[in-house]
Amino acid sequence: MALVVVGGVAAGLSAAARARRLDARLPIVVLEKGPVVSYAACGLPYLLEGRVREAADLIVHTPEYFRKERNIDVRTGALVTAVSHPRREVVLESGERIKYDRLVLATGARCDTSGIAGAGQAHVFTLHTLDDAERLRAFLRNRQPRRAVVIGAGYIGVEVADALSRNGLRVTILERGTDVLLRDDAPFSDAVRQTLETHGVELRCGMKVEAIEPDRVAGVPCDLVIVAAGFQPNVELARDAGVAIGRTGAIAADDHMETNVHGIFTAGDCAETMHLVTGRPTWIPLGTTANKMGRVAGANAAGGRERFPGVVGTCIVGIFGTAFAATGLSVAQARAEGLSPVSARIESLSRPRYYGGVKTNVELVADRATGRLIGGTVIGEDGAAGRINVIAAALHNRMRVEDFVAMDLAYSPPFSPVWDPLLIAAQQLSKQL
Amino acid sequence: MALVVVGGVAAGLSAAARARRLDARLPIVVLEKGPVVSYAACGLPYLLEGRVREAADLIVHTPEYFRKERNIDVRTGALVTAVSHPRREVVLESGERIKYDRLVLATGARCDTSGIAGAGQAHVFTLHTLDDAERLRAFLRNRQPRRAVVIGAGYIGVEVADALSRNGLRVTILERGTDVLLRDDAPFSDAVRQTLETHGVELRCGMKVEAIEPDRVAGVPCDLVIVAAGFQPNVELARDAGVAIGRTGAIAADDHMETNVHGIFTAGDCAETMHLVTGRPTWIPLGTTANKMGRVAGANAAGGRERFPGVVGTCIVGIFGTAFAATGLSVAQARAEGLSPVSARIESLSRPRYYGGVKTNVELVADRATGRLIGGTVIGEDGAAGRINVIAAALHNRMRVEDFVAMDLAYSPPFSPVWDPLLIAAQQLSKQL
Repeated sequence: MALVVVGGVAAGLSAAARARRLDARLPIVVLEKGPVVSYAACGLPYLLEGRVREAADLIVHTPEYFRKERNIDVRTGALVTAVSHPRREVVLESGERIKYDRLVLATGARCDTSGIAGAGQAHVFTLHTLDDAERLRAFLRNRQPRRAVVIGAGYIGVEVADALSRNGLRVTILERGTDVLLRDDAPFSDAVRQTLETHGVELRCGMKVEAIEPDRVAGVPCDLVIVAAGFQPNVELARDAGVAIGRTGAIAADDHMETNVHGIFTAGDCAETMHLVTGRPTWIPLGTTANKMGRVAGANAAGGRERFPGVVGTCIVGIFGTAFAATGLSVAQARAEGLSPVSARIESLSRPRYYGGVKTNVELVADRATGRLIGGTVIGEDGAAGRINVIAAALHNRMRVEDFVAMDLAYSPPFSPVWDPLLIAAQQLSKQL
Repeated sequence: MALVVVGGVAAGLSAAARARRLDARLPIVVLEKGPVVSYAACGLPYLLEGRVREAADLIVHTPEYFRKERNIDVRTGALVTAVSHPRREVVLESGERIKYDRLVLATGARCDTSGIAGAGQAHVFTLHTLDDAERLRAFLRNRQPRRAVVIGAGYIGVEVADALSRNGLRVTILERGTDVLLRDDAPFSDAVRQTLETHGVELRCGMKVEAIEPDRVAGVPCDLVIVAAGFQPNVELARDAGVAIGRTGAIAADDHMETNVHGIFTAGDCAETMHLVTGRPTWIPLGTTANKMGRVAGANAAGGRERFPGVVGTCIVGIFGTAFAATGLSVAQARAEGLSPVSARIESLSRPRYYGGVKTNVELVADRATGRLIGGTVIGEDGAAGRINVIAAALHNRMRVEDFVAMDLAYSPPFSPVWDPLLIAAQQLSKQL
């Protein structure tokens, strides 16, 4: 038995580490095409910002660590160009062939700039790898750009805009559609826009960028461009190996993270997973999900039988100190799923006024037919992460609004008001059910 | 139809306000024995500390507000001495009789110092009402005490110790038993002790105080004593009216907050409620529960049909900036309930190290027979409230550890590490199941 893992960031190394834990003798090889493994990709915007001082601070473990401490053969600069499943081997760019019995495809995603003319210019960057971040930092240092355009208002786009703005650049975000932070939710998008604009970052929606000119994008003058759009799962290897691709465009897998090809598992940004609210597969590439998937893929590749049930679509982004958090479905997304959503949106305080409470906005969305919560958002500077997680827990449990409203949440003035904003929102929502 | 509410703090006024909302014409009288109504009793320690400047900052609404804006007749200094249910009337100390059709008993709790000799001395205080806090503040100002003894290591005792210590007093807490913050949980108690001692507050357990001497308590020299023990529900009126008292010693009520006497409801610190983990009635007097109970009692007293299902025992206290949060059962409490608890206790970071994460301790407790979570604690300076609420949500939903471990919690470096401490604890716990 031998395990080969393609990809050495979040999902791949979670898989390898978990497999090792369950089987001390299994030969495990991890093949990473880039120069480093095991780095905190979600920390890249903070490296750009300067809050994280050194790229090294984002590197969790080195290949040496994995070799010596975990007996895992981690190779960098190892680009896999083909998978021959009949022969149970992967082929490296170097021509080397490596045999496997079980394979984990953790090939990640990429930022596809091929649809944008001029994306190859020296002042155009993506922020997907540690190397991207280092090159961008050098550019900031050496070229002192003053006006940046960020293409894409997803998580990374907004985080990058925040980081660049804090470094003194004037920033404009151009978003092709109307969804901000990947959520079809106009009030949520408006709130993001308002916070960005308060801090001098302009957000323009409905701006499809087809070309980057040397000194402007879509008429916006700039000397730096970050492409934070066009994310696509890396599925080419999988497809070549006969692995089925799902409707989302990512690699399809069952809840054991096994693909349709017996012995080939998948995890991370290349893989789709079940959306537990819609009951249909979804592709939501996020670091925390990648780690969870990887853990399960690794366990099962090592002969275990663990499950990754899926996600409820939880995400959170900090923008100039305010958290924008969402989970489940927005009203528009619920309608698109054929549900009959009702929602309540409230503004309240994060703690008592006498203990420094600040504004907190909560929206809860329920399905009228079942009375169940199906989504929510929390926006605020204090306690938003904890509150969105309570909604996420409710979604995992298919909780009804009438039960949510009575939840025994922790109360003490340093932490929350006597009526938590979640409960106030639930009270409002229950009136509509 | 007329509604009389006895008690005008959290539960009583929630009941009255909710009844008014459901029935615009119902005559409603609230009878409060004290001089003020509608104040944030949980804010009293912060008034003592000085963080809250004025007692007025803790008063939410005045009797005039209720009269003018809500058409609720709120009377202060109105001590009810008897209830004659056959005549459907309450009798005030003044001799006045007030008729009711529905009665809500929100008589609260008290700090019973009768078992302590010397409790009547001028340097001995309780901290139960706004008046208590004002008198204690005046004492601090005028008498400049230097060493305080706090009797009782419950929430109020510990909060008061924190507040006095921040005001420069040397403080010793004397606790009769071994439970700290009302939880039979030795590691949790030890953590509280450690934080207190780091900040110069001594905690001595197993110290039953029977007498307060003029200059010392149980051998500890002091010039100020706060009694924060001996809390008892005020059930005398209820008992006189033929209302059943539960095994906990508090007023028994069904999940509509109605007592055994048709037409008499109860809510707040005088009432017991269902513990949803043990399935048995419990008495956990807390402000947030009082408000929820009051809302339901008021709705039903006004002819509604709402439910208060019960609590899971969630609480949180801030001690010198560290949150100590708990919900459900500790291992010892679970054993006492006849369960077979297993637990995992981990220390992890609240956020990534590169984003300023600080130590966070999580314990999760499960029942081996069912695989369900039955309790947990979270200790830390960052995000503890949100995390304990996720555990509380799991308890409300009788969630199994194997499902908890895969929860889709919000991840982004400003808010949490890629593996949330909750999930790390759940992983550890799942290995034991």
